Amino acid sequence: MANSKYEYVKSFEQPDALLPNTWIVVRIDGRGFHKLSDHYGFIKPNDRRALDLMNAAAVGVMKDLPDLCIAYGISDEYSFAFHPNCQLFERRSAKLVTTIVSTFTAHYIYLWGTYFPDTPLQPAALPSFDGRAVMYPNSRIFRDYMSWRQVDCHINNLYNTTFWTMVLQGGMDRREAELELKGTLSSDKNEILFKRFGINYNNEEEIYKKGSVIYRQEETSPLQEDTPSKTQQEKIRKLRRKVQVVVDHVDIIKDEFWERRPWILSGKPGKLPTEAKQVAS
Amino acid sequence: MANSKYEYVKSFEQPDALLPNTWIVVRIDGRGFHKLSDHYGFIKPNDRRALDLMNAAAVGVMKDLPDLCIAYGISDEYSFAFHPNCQLFERRSAKLVTTIVSTFTAHYIYLWGTYFPDTPLQPAALPSFDGRAVMYPNSRIFRDYMSWRQVDCHINNLYNTTFWTMVLQGGMDRREAELELKGTLSSDKNEILFKRFGINYNNEEEIYKKGSVIYRQEETSPLQEDTPSKTQQEKIRKLRRKVQVVVDHVDIIKDEFWERRPWILSGKPGKLPTEAKQVAS
Amino acid sequence: MANSKYEYVKSFEQPDALLPNTWIVVRIDGRGFHKLSDHYGFIKPNDRRALDLMNAAAVGVMKDLPDLCIAYGISDEYSFAFHPNCQLFERRSAKLVTTIVSTFTAHYIYLWGTYFPDTPLQPAALPSFDGRAVMYPNSRIFRDYMSWRQVDCHINNLYNTTFWTMVLQGGMDRREAELELKGTLSSDKNEILFKRFGINYNNEEEIYKKGSVIYRQEETSPLQEDTPSKTQQEKIRKLRRKVQVVVDHVDIIKDEFWERRPWILSGKPGKLPTEAKQVAS
Amino acid sequence: MANSKYEYVKSFEQPDALLPNTWIVVRIDGRGFHKLSDHYGFIKPNDRRALDLMNAAAVGVMKDLPDLCIAYGISDEYSFAFHPNCQLFERRSAKLVTTIVSTFTAHYIYLWGTYFPDTPLQPAALPSFDGRAVMYPNSRIFRDYMSWRQVDCHINNLYNTTFWTMVLQGGMDRREAELELKGTLSSDKNEILFKRFGINYNNEEEIYKKGSVIYRQEETSPLQEDTPSKTQQEKIRKLRRKVQVVVDHVDIIKDEFWERRPWILSGKPGKLPTEAKQVAS
Repeated sequence: MANSKYEYVKSFEQPDALLPNTWIVVRIDGRGFHKLSDHYGFIKPNDRRALDLMNAAAVGVMKDLPDLCIAYGISDEYSFAFHPNCQLFERRSAKLVTTIVSTFTAHYIYLWGTYFPDTPLQPAALPSFDGRAVMYPNSRIFRDYMSWRQVDCHINNLYNTTFWTMVLQGGMDRREAELELKGTLSSDKNEILFKRFGINYNNEEEIYKKGSVIYRQEETSPLQEDTPSKTQQEKIRKLRRKVQVVVDHVDIIKDEFWERRPWILSGKPGKLPTEAKQVAS
Repeated sequence: MANSKYEYVKSFEQPDALLPNTWIVVRIDGRGFHKLSDHYGFIKPNDRRALDLMNAAAVGVMKDLPDLCIAYGISDEYSFAFHPNCQLFERRSAKLVTTIVSTFTAHYIYLWGTYFPDTPLQPAALPSFDGRAVMYPNSRIFRDYMSWRQVDCHINNLYNTTFWTMVLQGGMDRREAELELKGTLSSDKNEILFKRFGINYNNEEEIYKKGSVIYRQEETSPLQEDTPSKTQQEKIRKLRRKVQVVVDHVDIIKDEFWERRPWILSGKPGKLPTEAKQVAS
Repeated sequence: MANSKYEYVKSFEQPDALLPNTWIVVRIDGRGFHKLSDHYGFIKPNDRRALDLMNAAAVGVMKDLPDLCIAYGISDEYSFAFHPNCQLFERRSAKLVTTIVSTFTAHYIYLWGTYFPDTPLQPAALPSFDGRAVMYPNSRIFRDYMSWRQVDCHINNLYNTTFWTMVLQGGMDRREAELELKGTLSSDKNEILFKRFGINYNNEEEIYKKGSVIYRQEETSPLQEDTPSKTQQEKIRKLRRKVQVVVDHVDIIKDEFWERRPWILSGKPGKLPTEAKQVAS
Repeated sequence: MANSKYEYVKSFEQPDALLPNTWIVVRIDGRGFHKLSDHYGFIKPNDRRALDLMNAAAVGVMKDLPDLCIAYGISDEYSFAFHPNCQLFERRSAKLVTTIVSTFTAHYIYLWGTYFPDTPLQPAALPSFDGRAVMYPNSRIFRDYMSWRQVDCHINNLYNTTFWTMVLQGGMDRREAELELKGTLSSDKNEILFKRFGINYNNEEEIYKKGSVIYRQEETSPLQEDTPSKTQQEKIRKLRRKVQVVVDHVDIIKDEFWERRPWILSGKPGKLPTEAKQVAS
């Protein structure tokens, strides 16, 4: 039986390869997590179980997709980055973004019970994520993207920490707290925390203040070429599957993080590491 | 603390709204399901549990996204369609496709244990899906798309049924069977099945021969306007959440299916149904 | 000498084929024509020479590109339409739009002296045009696009006719006239023209009130297929080159225009006409 | 009269802004120039009048669009480049490419008579150009693009010079010459030219061997910021209109060209030059 009569519909699929030699960031966001976090009783302002689940799912994605070179997460969002020399799926945008979103979701749902053993998922309220792919033409702008997210983490966490302390410890009405915080500076919020509640924001946990950065504990391979062939790419993938994936809560705005891990920006990873720091899941 | 220094990176996100007044089909495919079906021991040529799981996940997507008007699935793929008048997420391609892929994945993983109670998922081999959005400018071409998928279902299922019967019942080597089937017509395969194994292909189960079509058992609302306002859209969504979602295994190539369910192509659904046929999950 | 070292840069060119089976409208606009019309002393509100030049250039485009099926122009803008079955340049957007813009510009500059014999062009103030391609999924929406332009023609011409009559015949200051016209309805402008200046707007020339529509005086070919092959396309092009190109100033909002020239919307032109009406250039 | 009924068609125009912070190259090509050069009797292998006309038109474009920072032309093609910090027309692709194509065409047609005084243009064979915009993420790749075009210039010119010398001076049949040149190296062609015709290819004119590069004779402004504001952009445009536009025939593959004119790659032009070399038109 000939299929040709209808096969012309394939011609309506439009190509969507991303521009070569650009950083690709796939950022995913929880859908309706405000409502969902209420539904499943997430602790305010930060639920450590929920963040650990996000990180575990992201580690799963990093392991399943060795082409990824770094990821950064805060709250219910995660950014996954491919180096400019990445050729995965011929750089097709929809393929890259849906693969990451689906893989993340699969791990998240699969691991839910591990992190929320007493709160089973309900079929009418399953967590899900949307995503988008964005190109950044060079490493300076890519790092500015990463800095943007970490600054956002700081701003949001300081606000949320102050707000929920005022509500939960201070007994304030939510609207009242919101009103008082409107227009305040970081220093104002620090002062509220310290003077009224004896809380030194600096002593808050790093995972809340800095977010989570995930990378491979490898070394720069001096042998790798700028544009690896398909065979080389496959070799690198195999090697990277053996490399330890690390979850860290450190500053990624300053140069130090990047200078100490040159394989991330160089796009020439692949050597097995000689030491590892903190191993994920 | 000002965020503005890095916020410029937001300008790199490019708009991706799909052309107005076109059908949008989001087709998702299982990633590496050939290997995965071996890994989890799917029965050949058709594993009813796996198909039922696909359908259950698709029903979950249809219920979570009332803007969807129809879905069609075969094997490890599913196509979800939005009517040309759909305004969901301002028709942004990445948002639409990732939401569907993630929601489908969430249901699939969540429901796995229901359909494979004796085959637990393993974290290193979690099922995942990729997807893409395609526009079709009118109902004739959209129906040709749906026909294309159902013809594909027929071609693949006849081939697979014959191939696996030759291997499993006929004791043939896989390569041998492949070689014999090369270049055969439908009639040849029907004859092999009937003469050698006494199997009448017409008696095979409809779900294998026709695939699965999912729609709402509603009625055309004569009151609805061509381009519903945001408020009207919300009303329609609410109404559609109450409507029964039906899984069927019928011909969608001929006119009859569409003529009996005019609300699908008209894009004017919303009236509560007076009767329902087969209710999903 | 090997070129391969640099040839990789070709991979940065991104495909831009427009969606199949959609109407393609390329609309071009004069760049800075407000200033340019002052520079070359165009007559207000309508300079017949300038409009005739626009039409002559558009006829040139229609003759050079037989794939075009209709064009409509007002003031310093022109819309050129390709039928959904058009395959020219594999429907690549940039190729289609630049070819039309360049061909139009070439004719416009070449013919300038014919229409403005006493006003030579100056190299620092050469007329030029920009353009864009827009897809419309079906004939109803394509006709709405054409109607939109003709309604715009009416609105602008009624305003301009009233404004410049107030200024040139009424001796009013420009700002004064602008202020008085602000917020007025069509009926108000008609009354100003009639009561103050004895002008019946209905008697104005059709080219000003209706704009200019250009099409081929051919007949529907009952023999043509829905999707003509490359050879058939070439035959149709040859045939259409012999067909007379007509410039008309008539209503294109009502059905009559389209019903009397069914080959435009059917996309099945090609038969040589048996009669012709008004032959262009 | 309300226009709103049809105005919805505007929503079908899709945004097409190019990625920020990338080089934009608009390359235009003569349409059907093989046939056209025969039609108007262009001299083989190089018609100096035709090249001078191309360059004059390109200078016209550079003067009309001060945002352009460099252009390079060979044969009937020209590449125009915008720096990554360019904000012209909000970087909309169609607007950029059509403006350049139209402006180039206008100058080309307008100047035709100056360079071909004895060969008037004919309305049925007007020269026209198509074009496309391509993004390059950094200066290294942008320079590779420019090198690619200049290497192409060399390859084509050596071939054409040898071919036409064999035909015009050697009296060979075209097919014969083509056959003999098939598969030859640069050194082979140099030898044919030298041994058979006493021609030293190195002594050919630079414009034929190197193509034409056009830039502004300005200086790097140490004062300019990375991302100039709209007001600053307008100031820079004004300043650049006064700067001399230079046409050169030099190597642009090696570093020297770029190191001596740092304002091109830095994107910080604007200072009035203290000396000029060769002034165009």
